[in-house]
Amino acid sequence: MGKAAGFTLGELAVALRATLDGDPSRVVTGVAPLDTAGPHEISFLIDRRYAAAAKASRAGAFLVPPDAAGLPAPTLRAEAPQLALIELLTLFHPAAAVPAGVHPSAAVARGARVDASASVGPFAVIEDGAAVGARVRVHALAYVGAGAEVGEDCVLHPRVVLYPGVRLGRRVVVQAGAVIGADGFGYTHDGTAHRKIPQVGSVRIEDDVEIGANTTIDRATLGETLIRRGTKIDNLVQIGHNVEVGEDSILVAQVGVSGSSRLGRGVVLAGQVGVADHVTLGDGVVSGAQAGIAADVAAGEKVLGTPARPVAQARRVWVAEGRLPELVRRLRAAERRLQRLEGQLGIAAPEPRGEDAEE
Amino acid sequence: MGKAAGFTLGELAVALRATLDGDPSRVVTGVAPLDTAGPHEISFLIDRRYAAAAKASRAGAFLVPPDAAGLPAPTLRAEAPQLALIELLTLFHPAAAVPAGVHPSAAVARGARVDASASVGPFAVIEDGAAVGARVRVHALAYVGAGAEVGEDCVLHPRVVLYPGVRLGRRVVVQAGAVIGADGFGYTHDGTAHRKIPQVGSVRIEDDVEIGANTTIDRATLGETLIRRGTKIDNLVQIGHNVEVGEDSILVAQVGVSGSSRLGRGVVLAGQVGVADHVTLGDGVVSGAQAGIAADVAAGEKVLGTPARPVAQARRVWVAEGRLPELVRRLRAAERRLQRLEGQLGIAAPEPRGEDAEE
Amino acid sequence: MGKAAGFTLGELAVALRATLDGDPSRVVTGVAPLDTAGPHEISFLIDRRYAAAAKASRAGAFLVPPDAAGLPAPTLRAEAPQLALIELLTLFHPAAAVPAGVHPSAAVARGARVDASASVGPFAVIEDGAAVGARVRVHALAYVGAGAEVGEDCVLHPRVVLYPGVRLGRRVVVQAGAVIGADGFGYTHDGTAHRKIPQVGSVRIEDDVEIGANTTIDRATLGETLIRRGTKIDNLVQIGHNVEVGEDSILVAQVGVSGSSRLGRGVVLAGQVGVADHVTLGDGVVSGAQAGIAADVAAGEKVLGTPARPVAQARRVWVAEGRLPELVRRLRAAERRLQRLEGQLGIAAPEPRGEDAEE
Repeated sequence: MGKAAGFTLGELAVALRATLDGDPSRVVTGVAPLDTAGPHEISFLIDRRYAAAAKASRAGAFLVPPDAAGLPAPTLRAEAPQLALIELLTLFHPAAAVPAGVHPSAAVARGARVDASASVGPFAVIEDGAAVGARVRVHALAYVGAGAEVGEDCVLHPRVVLYPGVRLGRRVVVQAGAVIGADGFGYTHDGTAHRKIPQVGSVRIEDDVEIGANTTIDRATLGETLIRRGTKIDNLVQIGHNVEVGEDSILVAQVGVSGSSRLGRGVVLAGQVGVADHVTLGDGVVSGAQAGIAADVAAGEKVLGTPARPVAQARRVWVAEGRLPELVRRLRAAERRLQRLEGQLGIAAPEPRGEDAEE
Repeated sequence: MGKAAGFTLGELAVALRATLDGDPSRVVTGVAPLDTAGPHEISFLIDRRYAAAAKASRAGAFLVPPDAAGLPAPTLRAEAPQLALIELLTLFHPAAAVPAGVHPSAAVARGARVDASASVGPFAVIEDGAAVGARVRVHALAYVGAGAEVGEDCVLHPRVVLYPGVRLGRRVVVQAGAVIGADGFGYTHDGTAHRKIPQVGSVRIEDDVEIGANTTIDRATLGETLIRRGTKIDNLVQIGHNVEVGEDSILVAQVGVSGSSRLGRGVVLAGQVGVADHVTLGDGVVSGAQAGIAADVAAGEKVLGTPARPVAQARRVWVAEGRLPELVRRLRAAERRLQRLEGQLGIAAPEPRGEDAEE
Repeated sequence: MGKAAGFTLGELAVALRATLDGDPSRVVTGVAPLDTAGPHEISFLIDRRYAAAAKASRAGAFLVPPDAAGLPAPTLRAEAPQLALIELLTLFHPAAAVPAGVHPSAAVARGARVDASASVGPFAVIEDGAAVGARVRVHALAYVGAGAEVGEDCVLHPRVVLYPGVRLGRRVVVQAGAVIGADGFGYTHDGTAHRKIPQVGSVRIEDDVEIGANTTIDRATLGETLIRRGTKIDNLVQIGHNVEVGEDSILVAQVGVSGSSRLGRGVVLAGQVGVADHVTLGDGVVSGAQAGIAADVAAGEKVLGTPARPVAQARRVWVAEGRLPELVRRLRAAERRLQRLEGQLGIAAPEPRGEDAEE
């Protein structure tokens, strides 16, 4: 991103549709966090946890929610301060203009179509039959395989690999090192060796998806692995063959989703969650970090733990687990007390039933 | 993969050594999953769970096991339908022919040997002393370090990195972005800083191994990190220095194996399993997803959970865990009943024994 | 690394400041592990677990701690044998000299500064405004973004990506495929879609840090993601935006640290550990493999498990968990005994209290 020179608070109030409480002619030249902002910078208080840090901040102005109070400098009050922050950051850090055109060192196959408004960086490779749409940026060292399609306004950061036939919609952003379309992991044992099941399907990524650095999304055995519109995927995530991820889902770093599983729309998987194969997660399922999901989860459920359980139950289990050593002692004490009572009453202790049903 | 035009069911019956039940002159032009196959495509029913989907399918023919019944179109019955499916997919999607030769943009060092039948893609780098065997395909942007050896019929997908001295056997397939031979993670603290232990060993990959996208396999401190014949490794797997993985093992995505551990042959580690350092897993050990294996596991054992336990025990523990909050309540109730009984009998409740042995 | 011809034991004793017990004129030509070393090689016994292997070894000499005894060949006794091993390996495997200069195929932007003593490999890309310091090695296919800074004596292995503006100190080593400075994972939902929060901060890596293969370290939203001096990071690790990792910490493979968390100095996270966002780990915190750390941990604490607990407690919980099925049976037996006693005494069993407090 580039960097703009400065704005008056009056200009910012207009741009952010915010209410200014302070001098509209005051100029700020950048955005900074509460603890490092100086008098020529604007900072922001969105998360109430940082109220004390805001009061101690040397920032020259603050972007705040409507009800914030007691700040030591002019404030811009916005109804949706989180969204206003996006505007603010974009004003100060406008996307760097990238000149259209193919770098002379890039290897674009004769049969590839690259829109004249696209930019292609050094040592990028675009193979035969691939199509690169308007205003796409293919950064240095990226690889677009034969017949792959890259929709308008996509960004392929350095070293992204799209295997042959992979299709990206519009405005898809792929961070460096991600690999889309590698063979799914499918083998059959023939009695003496693992035989590879040809992975002849593909991957389709819909509009407005973002894919993190060094993430891998495998091609389908047959048909498509599909990431639907608006879904955001973090770094080092693994998506197996024939998986379908619904719209507007969030997959945090190091999540793994095994083959043929289907995630609904608005699903949120926190970091390092694992989803087994052939599992269905309904719309809006939310999973806590590191959960292991081996069975279907109904729409709207929140789960946690390995094996994944409804979050309230999982928390009770975790609390009880922490008390397990104590429970063992208490059970032992109860058994001793029973023995004493039985002795008192002249009753023989019962024989252990051994493998009786656990009830 | 390319794509063939079409086959009659009679031709397919011969090629797959299958029994045809239907018109041998009927033509199918592709293979498709049950739910999307149309009347000109052949589908397959291998997993019985999909019997209903098969009955509802519009496919023009089905590849099935010998005892399948009630399908709505001609069937090809094969003794080993999973293997026949591999043949079927290969017939319709033959591997694309890759012309031999070195792309003019590739950087092949003068002292590297590249077989005349090999193909080397754009911006691939082959360093001094490296040897690339017959029919090898080195895709675009791949890196073969000094002195590395790549056996016959290997495939290095785009952007694979082989560090200097790494050796691959024959028919090894490495998916995009995998890194083989980076330094192992070894340091000694000298009292003031972590000092790096030089990692001067190498990595050897035997025949018929497949390595997933963005997977990392570290070089040995001394000697070799070794992946034996026929083993299949999925995406984003980490193999530490001096690890040995036996023949025909399966390591699913995001598995991590720490330094100097030894896996026997036919070991299966499901997704996100972690194996500690200096651990030995015997032949045929199978681990469920996300297990944490910190101690040796005997040949043939199946384990699950963190810490990893024999699978039957781990499942019992998981069930009991789910009931823990209930058990806490029941224990409390039992204690109250004891107190009442003791009161009734005029017996003082015993003093808690405090830190008594857990029994 | 290159490879030296051979040394006498006398020369090695001097170089390693070790006490020789044996013939100083004896020559060894390499270092090898105990099990493969031959009579012309020196091996080492540092970990006592290998004492038996050392006694059976055919090595021509051994590097050992001062009190080792009973070895079948001459010994070099060193006060700090682990550090002496580093010297020994470096003697036999001196770092290969890399000639200075830019490979003719590299793409160095006109506005980039590359020190004359640096080496830049084939198809490396150095963008405008980047600065590459003295004796830096930028290997093939690496990418140094606009305005990035690479301090003296750094090594960027093949295919490393530094996004624009990333700054590395001196002697930083980055293994192949690592991505430093990709966008942090930050979105706000505007009611209809996830809106990206511009990630306009950067990453700073201090001196003597090492970063593993295919690891990802995200740029800050604002300000810096910071890895402090001397920290070592293994392969496939994820470091989120605005994280700070203190000096001399160790992050083992596949660890994930979520946004804005702060790790103190000397923190050790074993493999596959996950740290939630906005968490603080004090100096010297040590976490066992696969732990899930969702809350602050005080300096010096050792934790284990998910949720992470003090290590002694976590081990007791794990032991008790393993006995859970037995505890369920014992509780059931105690309840039956209670019922019998109550019957004997003519007391009705109490009503279950239902949702009573768990105590």
